[in-house]
Amino acid sequence: MSPLPHFKRMVIAGVGLIGGSLALVCKEKGIVSEIIGVGRSEGNLRDAVNLKAIDSYTSKIEDAVKGADIIVLATPVSSLIRLAKEMAPYLSPGAIVTDVGSVKGSVIEIEKIIPSNTFFVGGHPIAGKEKSGVKAASPGIFHGSRCILTPTPKTNPDALSIIQSMWELSGARVICMEPERHDLIFAAVSHLPHVISYALVNTLLDLEKEEEGVISYSAGGFRDFTRIAASHPEMWRDICLMNRENIIRMLERYEKSVERLKSLIMKGDADGLFAEFDRAKRVREKL
Amino acid sequence: MSPLPHFKRMVIAGVGLIGGSLALVCKEKGIVSEIIGVGRSEGNLRDAVNLKAIDSYTSKIEDAVKGADIIVLATPVSSLIRLAKEMAPYLSPGAIVTDVGSVKGSVIEIEKIIPSNTFFVGGHPIAGKEKSGVKAASPGIFHGSRCILTPTPKTNPDALSIIQSMWELSGARVICMEPERHDLIFAAVSHLPHVISYALVNTLLDLEKEEEGVISYSAGGFRDFTRIAASHPEMWRDICLMNRENIIRMLERYEKSVERLKSLIMKGDADGLFAEFDRAKRVREKL
Repeated sequence: MSPLPHFKRMVIAGVGLIGGSLALVCKEKGIVSEIIGVGRSEGNLRDAVNLKAIDSYTSKIEDAVKGADIIVLATPVSSLIRLAKEMAPYLSPGAIVTDVGSVKGSVIEIEKIIPSNTFFVGGHPIAGKEKSGVKAASPGIFHGSRCILTPTPKTNPDALSIIQSMWELSGARVICMEPERHDLIFAAVSHLPHVISYALVNTLLDLEKEEEGVISYSAGGFRDFTRIAASHPEMWRDICLMNRENIIRMLERYEKSVERLKSLIMKGDADGLFAEFDRAKRVREKL
Repeated sequence: MSPLPHFKRMVIAGVGLIGGSLALVCKEKGIVSEIIGVGRSEGNLRDAVNLKAIDSYTSKIEDAVKGADIIVLATPVSSLIRLAKEMAPYLSPGAIVTDVGSVKGSVIEIEKIIPSNTFFVGGHPIAGKEKSGVKAASPGIFHGSRCILTPTPKTNPDALSIIQSMWELSGARVICMEPERHDLIFAAVSHLPHVISYALVNTLLDLEKEEEGVISYSAGGFRDFTRIAASHPEMWRDICLMNRENIIRMLERYEKSVERLKSLIMKGDADGLFAEFDRAKRVREKL
C-alpha cells in the first residue's frame, strides 16, 4: 500500500449512497481539500452540501473536472461512458478517473476515451444495496465490506495503488481481478438472483389475476424475493443489458437446474430430490 | 366462535416447534388437564416435559390415544397417514384428530381412515419456519399469524368450531378454505420459492467447481436464497412429493416467466425489461 497523496480537488459525479458515503470518508480522513458534486438533481446536491459530503456542486461537468486530481463516477452504470466522453476534453494531466459501477467489462472503454496523460481505474465497492440517496450515506458503510478493482494491462500501477489506498481508508478490503472475471462472478451471485426474483414475483402477479388473494398468503419464502425484486428497475435493466452475455450464460445453467428438479418431482424420485436439497446445505460452508 | 370445551387428555404426536408451542398455549390457557407427547426421540420428549409443554410421553401411540379427546398430529407431513392408521383402532368415540401439515389435499384421506364416530379437521398454522425443535417452542409464536383450516363436506361443524377456537386462543387468525385451494396457494407462495432457491444454490455450487471462490463473493442477492435453501431437505422433499401436481403447474408458469426475461435480455429490449422489472414493485401493494 503506497502512501495516499493529498487530493486538491475531488469530483463526485452522482452523489448518492455510494458517492456520498465515499465523499464523507475522504472528508473524515482529511485526504482532500475540496469535493465538488456533479448531478442532475439540485435538491439532492443541496442535501449533500448540508450533510457536508461535498463543499459545492455544479451541473456542468467541465467546470468541475478542470483542476481536479481525482474524479469518481458514481452515477448509474449506463451513464458512465457518456459521462467519460463529456469530461474527457477538460481533464487535467495526471487526473485519475475511477468508477463504482457493478458491471466492469463494458466500462473499460473509458480507458480509450480519456486522454493518454490521465488514468482510469475501474472499481466496484460491494456495499449498501438496500437503501439509496445521499441522505442514507454514511462513512461507515464500506467498513468490513469488499471493494473490487479491475485493472487491465493498460492500468497505471500508481493510479491503481492510489485508488486501492483510498478504498482501504474506508475500511473496505480491496481485491483486484480482471474485469471479465468480475462480470462472470457478479452475473452468478448478484445479477442472476435478481433476475429470477423478478421472474418469481411476476409469476405470482400473473397468478393473482386468476386466483385473487394468493399473494396475501405469502409468508417467509416469497417475502424474501419481493424485497429483492422491489428495488431499482432502471438499475437492473441497465445491468442486464451491460452484462448480457454472462447473465444469459448463468440463466441457461439455472434453467437446467430448475428442469432437473422439476423432472425429479414429476417422477416422484424421493432419493433424487433429497440429494439435490441436501447438497444445497453445503453452500453454507462456502460463505 | 363456539365455547371451547375443556379437554381431559390431549395427545401431541411430534412435539417440535409447532406441536410444542401449541401445547404451551393450551397449558397457559388452562383448556386441558393432561397433555401426552408421542415421538421417536426420547431426548426431545424429555426436553418437552422439562419445558412443561407436556405432562408425560410415550413411544406407543395406542397407549396415548386411549381416552384422549383431542389428538394433534404435528409430525412430518409424510408420516401423517401412517400415524392415523396406527392410532385409528384405539381412538375413543368423539375424539377429534387434527394436524398442522403444510400440504392438505393428500391428508384428507385421514377422514376415511379414522372410525366414523371420531372427527378429523385439517389445519396449517403459518408460523415459525426458521427454527425447529421443542427448545424453540413458545406460546407466542402463533400470535398475529394465520392458521388455515381445510374443512371438507364431511367435516363435522362442531369439531371444526372447536379446532378454530383452539387456534384463536393461540392468537392466530383462522381462515377456512378447501384443501385444494390451500395446496394451490402454498405451491405458489411457499413451495415454488423453496424449489427455485434450491435450484439457484445448486447452480452456484456447480459453477463453484469451475470457478473456485465465486460463492464467497455473494452479497445481498444470493445470501437470501441460501438461507431459504439451507433448511430441512427431508421436509421439502416430502412437500414436493405430496403437492406434486400444484408445484409442477407453478414451475411451468415460472419457467415461462424466466424464459420471457431471458429473451428480453438476449434481444437487448430495454423498454421490455424495464416494464417487467417495474411491475414487480406492485407486489408490495398486495402484501
